[in-house]
Amino acid sequence: MYGLIGKMLAAPGKREELLAILLENVGAMPGCLSYIIARDPDSEDGLWITEAWDSKESHAGSLQLPQVQATIARARPLIAGFGERFETEPLGGVGL
Amino acid sequence: MYGLIGKMLAAPGKREELLAILLENVGAMPGCLSYIIARDPDSEDGLWITEAWDSKESHAGSLQLPQVQATIARARPLIAGFGERFETEPLGGVGL
Repeated sequence: MYGLIGKMLAAPGKREELLAILLENVGAMPGCLSYIIARDPDSEDGLWITEAWDSKESHAGSLQLPQVQATIARARPLIAGFGERFETEPLGGVGL
Repeated sequence: MYGLIGKMLAAPGKREELLAILLENVGAMPGCLSYIIARDPDSEDGLWITEAWDSKESHAGSLQLPQVQATIARARPLIAGFGERFETEPLGGVGL
């Protein structure tokens, strides 16, 4: 399995709008086992996305899906940057 | 919802043993929506645990469960310390 933990920074005042776009567009993607969108309670503009995929290739492939590309296009103007980013190797647990 | 992203550092040479204990003991816990155990591919001793709970109280309550306390007792000698730790506020996505 392949995992990602990443922090995204919304443009000032745009976090809720960005979250709404991400939440309304997240859905079934081939090989996606977990994709959780969260607010960072310790900042005004941060959000966390934690992901688990059956393979690194499935994650890379998802970025080519039309609905994902459409979401990225809508979200991009609301994103100021990125914070921490960690790759992981999920092994098991609840919710996979 | 309440979330945690945390890095645990195994004692030298003990990561696989620690992972095995965590993986074999993770199971249904009241209010637990996601609990994913992962290896850190960028270090020899790191592992990541990403969690989503229906509430902060459910997470706190889980630490009192007999099976969780038994797992903590078995795991503790294999844990050298902890790394990054982030609280999150999960909102939605896949795998909750």
